[in-house]
Amino acid sequence: MNEQHEGLTRRQVLTGVGGLAAGLAIGGLGVPSAMASAGQDAIWPMPYVKLDPEEVRKLGHRGYYEGECCRGAFSAIVGSLQRKVGAPFTGIPINIMAYGTAGVAGWCTLCGALNGACAAISLVSENYKAIANELLQWYVQAPFPSEKANALAVNHQYLVDKYKSDKALPSSVPGSPLCHINVSRWCKEHGYASGSSERSERCARISGDVAAYAVELLNMDMDGKFTAMHKPSAEVEGCRVCHRKGKDFEAGNWTRGKMECGDCHDEATVKLVGPDHP
Amino acid sequence: MNEQHEGLTRRQVLTGVGGLAAGLAIGGLGVPSAMASAGQDAIWPMPYVKLDPEEVRKLGHRGYYEGECCRGAFSAIVGSLQRKVGAPFTGIPINIMAYGTAGVAGWCTLCGALNGACAAISLVSENYKAIANELLQWYVQAPFPSEKANALAVNHQYLVDKYKSDKALPSSVPGSPLCHINVSRWCKEHGYASGSSERSERCARISGDVAAYAVELLNMDMDGKFTAMHKPSAEVEGCRVCHRKGKDFEAGNWTRGKMECGDCHDEATVKLVGPDHP
Repeated sequence: MNEQHEGLTRRQVLTGVGGLAAGLAIGGLGVPSAMASAGQDAIWPMPYVKLDPEEVRKLGHRGYYEGECCRGAFSAIVGSLQRKVGAPFTGIPINIMAYGTAGVAGWCTLCGALNGACAAISLVSENYKAIANELLQWYVQAPFPSEKANALAVNHQYLVDKYKSDKALPSSVPGSPLCHINVSRWCKEHGYASGSSERSERCARISGDVAAYAVELLNMDMDGKFTAMHKPSAEVEGCRVCHRKGKDFEAGNWTRGKMECGDCHDEATVKLVGPDHP
Repeated sequence: MNEQHEGLTRRQVLTGVGGLAAGLAIGGLGVPSAMASAGQDAIWPMPYVKLDPEEVRKLGHRGYYEGECCRGAFSAIVGSLQRKVGAPFTGIPINIMAYGTAGVAGWCTLCGALNGACAAISLVSENYKAIANELLQWYVQAPFPSEKANALAVNHQYLVDKYKSDKALPSSVPGSPLCHINVSRWCKEHGYASGSSERSERCARISGDVAAYAVELLNMDMDGKFTAMHKPSAEVEGCRVCHRKGKDFEAGNWTRGKMECGDCHDEATVKLVGPDHP
């Protein structure tokens, strides 16, 4: 079975390997068999063009109002590319990322803004893993909403007519890429209910902030100048000396991941170091 | 600005609203301006056809070997639709979901198999939120690898030539949709290192198991017979009486989500109920 069409490199696109003409015709929902069997290949990475992070920040905010966090961040980037570039971006339905709302259908796992922005990154860059990693590492350390986001709201420079809140909202640093932790931390720190208009508005601003930073990274990547600028905390780096993906179970290599340890594990546990550490 | 093309309903597709001819031509990486400005619209939901869950189970396993968990589960479903239906699925590069590997670039947040399968669900069904919810609710309660997955490995019925392990691996119930918790729990319960071939092979089998169940749900959905079959645990339902998305901060509505509380919060805390509950 030829799986070539499931992932083409930029080289394959440039040299024409794999067939580069794709067409689409729909009668009812039937797909003409001649087209279906022609072996059309998806282009990957799709041809990114530089976007304006400040424009994308506004689009991510509006995107949240239209379809919540994950779809919102994805639409800010991929919707912009659909308008600026057209095909092949126009073949991607924005709703492919609609499921990611509130950490997947309300489960509050991965922040939807991160999920949507990462999908856009993966669509346009072979460097997706390093860029997605930097996006998450920045996110866990950044205060949300950003000052830029608050200024846009106060000055009514976002693209929505009716604001859930046009106040400068207080900020919290998520500490975690998980929706549940980010939302709970902010709500408890500032006394807002999780079903409040302010919490929802903060998530709209986060959708814009995350999409904007993703575009900053993609713009750097396009110039060949992408570098990771954010590092894990000392706690995570300390724990991960032993508790990481590795081959030695007895040495503590029975876990993996980069999330902040103390967000879930008891502080007393994560502070145990040295000869007394179990 | 017309955002219509970012999300078409099935009705719009059927009635022809929005323009249904999409074409693609690449010279170098330039996109012909006539095509780019023609306003081609992505089709959503894309026209799902029923797939064989047992075939998809094997493809998800092979997909993990080709590009890890998230891309693997996504490719098992969308790659199948590319071969069976052709366009418009052939316009979707499978690598759009490559970032999701190991809970996004190794962060171990959302299980990549879930993320990839949910994107496929969101691509083909207006019922994506309920189906994704059921997929996660099933996942947290299901033993992985499944008996079917273990049988395929032992009998060498998967599609790969060289197995990371062809043993019947011991199973654990994840309890959580998070990669970190699922992997750590299994490794500690059964004494495997997180960098072991067996851990990796389990994730390959999970990629197949998750894609297969997603297809079972999509097949039911296509017949108009989808129903949610898995319910939250008593613990989650109990805590969420107060600790849920809501408008009353004082009553405990300062959080949200559906993950198992005791996986991160101290057992003593989550068992506090009745008049003594703080």
